[in-house]
Amino acid sequence: MSRQMARPGGRSARVQAAVHEAVRELGAEVGRDAVTVPMVAQRAGVTPSTIYRRWGDLQALLSDVAVERLRPDTEPKDHGALSADLTVWAEQFLDEMASPAGRAYIRDALLGDPDGSNAGQCSVYAAEQIDVVLARAKGRGESTPAVETVIDRVVAPLMYRILFRPDGIDAAYARRLVTEVLGTTG
Amino acid sequence: MSRQMARPGGRSARVQAAVHEAVRELGAEVGRDAVTVPMVAQRAGVTPSTIYRRWGDLQALLSDVAVERLRPDTEPKDHGALSADLTVWAEQFLDEMASPAGRAYIRDALLGDPDGSNAGQCSVYAAEQIDVVLARAKGRGESTPAVETVIDRVVAPLMYRILFRPDGIDAAYARRLVTEVLGTTG
Repeated sequence: MSRQMARPGGRSARVQAAVHEAVRELGAEVGRDAVTVPMVAQRAGVTPSTIYRRWGDLQALLSDVAVERLRPDTEPKDHGALSADLTVWAEQFLDEMASPAGRAYIRDALLGDPDGSNAGQCSVYAAEQIDVVLARAKGRGESTPAVETVIDRVVAPLMYRILFRPDGIDAAYARRLVTEVLGTTG
Repeated sequence: MSRQMARPGGRSARVQAAVHEAVRELGAEVGRDAVTVPMVAQRAGVTPSTIYRRWGDLQALLSDVAVERLRPDTEPKDHGALSADLTVWAEQFLDEMASPAGRAYIRDALLGDPDGSNAGQCSVYAAEQIDVVLARAKGRGESTPAVETVIDRVVAPLMYRILFRPDGIDAAYARRLVTEVLGTTG
């Protein structure tokens, strides 16, 4: 991911911000499948070769933009108990990822990502959010499962079904996964 | 998936077989990313417009070929006990899907598949294999989890980690997932 190489505030960061914004605007205007590198370059005020040099190709650029869009804006809300915090988080995660925009971003993140670092970043975002929820629960003296267990038992089934088995996935299913994983911590 | 519309033995089925074979051969010879529709058409002895009419674009064709390659050749082996059958199946599933070829096929199946039917077919294949294992165990009088539970607890974590979190995934992890899901049927 080129994003991590950019110094905040430097020219590199400004180019990246302008290019990402151009991709988002053009995607909204003409549809994601009609976006081309020359269109993005013109809108962002850079040359196409700047984009090719930095991102390699359009798919890699779309993948970077997708990961940026999948980054959570805020910490999970505090509802005073682990089961409420994790349930609300899982419902929201399902809502966002299963939406047409969410599915498109997940696909883009998985593609144009030969070394898997963008897909990995999506998983890091989920793990960070879950970490916040679990740390808060520990602070209250609640017993908690490990973050990797929550990934296996809640995040993985949600994401697998969104990608491979979308029928019949709903908020009740997300709630059941959370109830079951919390049941195992006794 | 156009495959399901083809009458076996008809012209449509022969075209499909020739085109799929051309894609597989060319993929092996020049690498998947260098394959083009005109190359495939020439090798398969059809016109490019036949391919465009039937598959729409190269990505959709690659997606169909990928699903075909992900179809299991044989039933899961019978080792005389559910835990052995499911453990061996899960280890093999991980082996195949986490291999470079497996990862490439999964990506192709997920792409070029706007309605999700190809990705869905991959999940059907896994469910069918698990069904065989569970039916056999029931025949022996063993207690078994539901197939959807095995998907949530074994297939989903394996596939999620292959796609999003590939570090540290190994046969021991696959075995642990199986032990845990069988522990719940007590």
